[in-house]
Amino acid sequence: MLDELKIIASEVDKTLREDEFPENILPNYLKEAVIDYPTRGGKRLRPAVAMWTCGLFSQKPETALLPACAIEIFHTWTLVHDDIIDDDPTRRGKPSSHESLKTTSKELFKAEEKDADQFGKSFAILTGDLQQAWAMSLLMKASGKTLTSELTLCIMDRMINHLYPRLLSGEAIDVEFEHRPLDDISEEEILTMLRWKTGVLLQFAAETGAIIGLNTPNYRLDSVKSAGEFALEAGLAFQLQDDILGVYAQEEEWGKPVGNDIRTRKVTLLIKKALELSTGEERIHLTNCLGNADMTESDLERARDIIRECGALSAIEEMAKECIEKAKESLLQLQDNKYRQLLDELADFLIQRKF
Amino acid sequence: MLDELKIIASEVDKTLREDEFPENILPNYLKEAVIDYPTRGGKRLRPAVAMWTCGLFSQKPETALLPACAIEIFHTWTLVHDDIIDDDPTRRGKPSSHESLKTTSKELFKAEEKDADQFGKSFAILTGDLQQAWAMSLLMKASGKTLTSELTLCIMDRMINHLYPRLLSGEAIDVEFEHRPLDDISEEEILTMLRWKTGVLLQFAAETGAIIGLNTPNYRLDSVKSAGEFALEAGLAFQLQDDILGVYAQEEEWGKPVGNDIRTRKVTLLIKKALELSTGEERIHLTNCLGNADMTESDLERARDIIRECGALSAIEEMAKECIEKAKESLLQLQDNKYRQLLDELADFLIQRKF
Repeated sequence: MLDELKIIASEVDKTLREDEFPENILPNYLKEAVIDYPTRGGKRLRPAVAMWTCGLFSQKPETALLPACAIEIFHTWTLVHDDIIDDDPTRRGKPSSHESLKTTSKELFKAEEKDADQFGKSFAILTGDLQQAWAMSLLMKASGKTLTSELTLCIMDRMINHLYPRLLSGEAIDVEFEHRPLDDISEEEILTMLRWKTGVLLQFAAETGAIIGLNTPNYRLDSVKSAGEFALEAGLAFQLQDDILGVYAQEEEWGKPVGNDIRTRKVTLLIKKALELSTGEERIHLTNCLGNADMTESDLERARDIIRECGALSAIEEMAKECIEKAKESLLQLQDNKYRQLLDELADFLIQRKF
Repeated sequence: MLDELKIIASEVDKTLREDEFPENILPNYLKEAVIDYPTRGGKRLRPAVAMWTCGLFSQKPETALLPACAIEIFHTWTLVHDDIIDDDPTRRGKPSSHESLKTTSKELFKAEEKDADQFGKSFAILTGDLQQAWAMSLLMKASGKTLTSELTLCIMDRMINHLYPRLLSGEAIDVEFEHRPLDDISEEEILTMLRWKTGVLLQFAAETGAIIGLNTPNYRLDSVKSAGEFALEAGLAFQLQDDILGVYAQEEEWGKPVGNDIRTRKVTLLIKKALELSTGEERIHLTNCLGNADMTESDLERARDIIRECGALSAIEEMAKECIEKAKESLLQLQDNKYRQLLDELADFLIQRKF
């Protein structure tokens, strides 16, 4: 599966590198910012889901290559705007888009700190806006080539009227969480946020792969829905595993600061569960760590023990496993072939990964 | 013409008010932010250009109503993101999107100033992102109703691959100007920025109205190009007039602080010209006023006199008139009827307006 995933990644990389959409963008550093994240590599999970789902129904995964690239760029723009919103300085171990554009303004225009900061964020807003157009552009390129115009409009309609409002509402709810007391936020709300912010894009990838594979402009078919359910549940498992890794990963492997979810009081199901299950001094320690930027390594180590010992860790691991089982059940509704096998292995991979 | 413009405005208002795209957005205050600017009214110049151009070729302006609404919402999202970028506190005399969302976070979550500021900007980024989808959604709604899917895809292609990169490059160049010395910026560059940032959207409105009126998916036809040229030149005149009003308008009529272009050292052709034509103490006074937030009313009055007396004001007025003449020449290439007359009067209106 990992070898097949690498093939998808290299096809996606090649298509994005050769695509001419960014060519007309000025100034040059804005063009480079638009290309930046998409050329930082990555596993290209979303394109793989789209192409393998397409392959499952048609044996021809490459029919979905351009839409898969569109989905990857769609994912990219949400990351660029998300990084501004979270004021995150890094992405995949390199400076985030607004940080890198901030540096540009210092180098090119000798901008001072505050101006440079505003410049970086302004240009990163425009970068994400252009990537929204780029995603659409890739999808439209498929029209008349691998897709009929009817199918293209159907996918676009789903992207615009279904994916956009849900994904951005999920993002919005996540931002809102930061401003609300944790006790006021229910598990149900956190699950809805995860489904919308992360799950719905994977679901869209699978459903779109399915309607392309079936060559039918109909997102309501049972087999299309099953493919979507698979990806939605697998995405949820992925996110839960991410929350676990955010606290328990080895920093060298994880590639970003472990414990930041606690330091910044990120609202995750793992933390919510730990607050629910822990009591007395343990709960007080956890509460003191949350949102505490000065938390020491030994504070974090104790928080890890508390989250494990109160049963929150195993509860979330169990929940992730259940999601994967649900995902696999949905997959079993569909025909068995090489591509179903690849998707099945991908689901396992999502919760086995250690970094 | 003004009465006809009001009819367009009320049709656009009604369509936007009744459109169900915003319904699925959560939280509620994000949904309200998405609807906010579009329901603040306005002259709806861009929809009028699209619908009258459509009428010019087909006698049926209403065929272009949904695409015209899409263009209006497209304009809206650029304003929302632009207001964040310029950190502009107001829009049409009310709080700008990020300001109003900042207030929301203070009211709902008791957020403190810095957090509220970040919250307001974050949600305004998402507001503009959702409006981008809304614009597309309106355009796609026309497919199968007033437009064929071929024509819809053609308009979408133009929007995505032509309008987006140019308009956002224009916006980017304008932001960049703030960070460069005025002496390094040429008139040519300012004109390119104006064409891209403001002109290209009006051009798109006219061209799109034309291809809908002609019912042909071909932006390269001479008559489509003439309609586009008309709108591009009229848009340029509009922008030049705006630059003049920014310095010389009556504040009560203008509705925003007059002189801000000088106070914030905005790069306009009027200011560039004045620096080129003035000398000695006059030039020094102007230079001192530029970017000087503490400029007094009498400083501003003197700056006005200098800009007038050095000939910059009349040079820009002349330039605006030439644009209108070019616009009208392009219009003369097209058939004469009620809608051509309306467009002709609209062009005059753009440079006659006093506020």
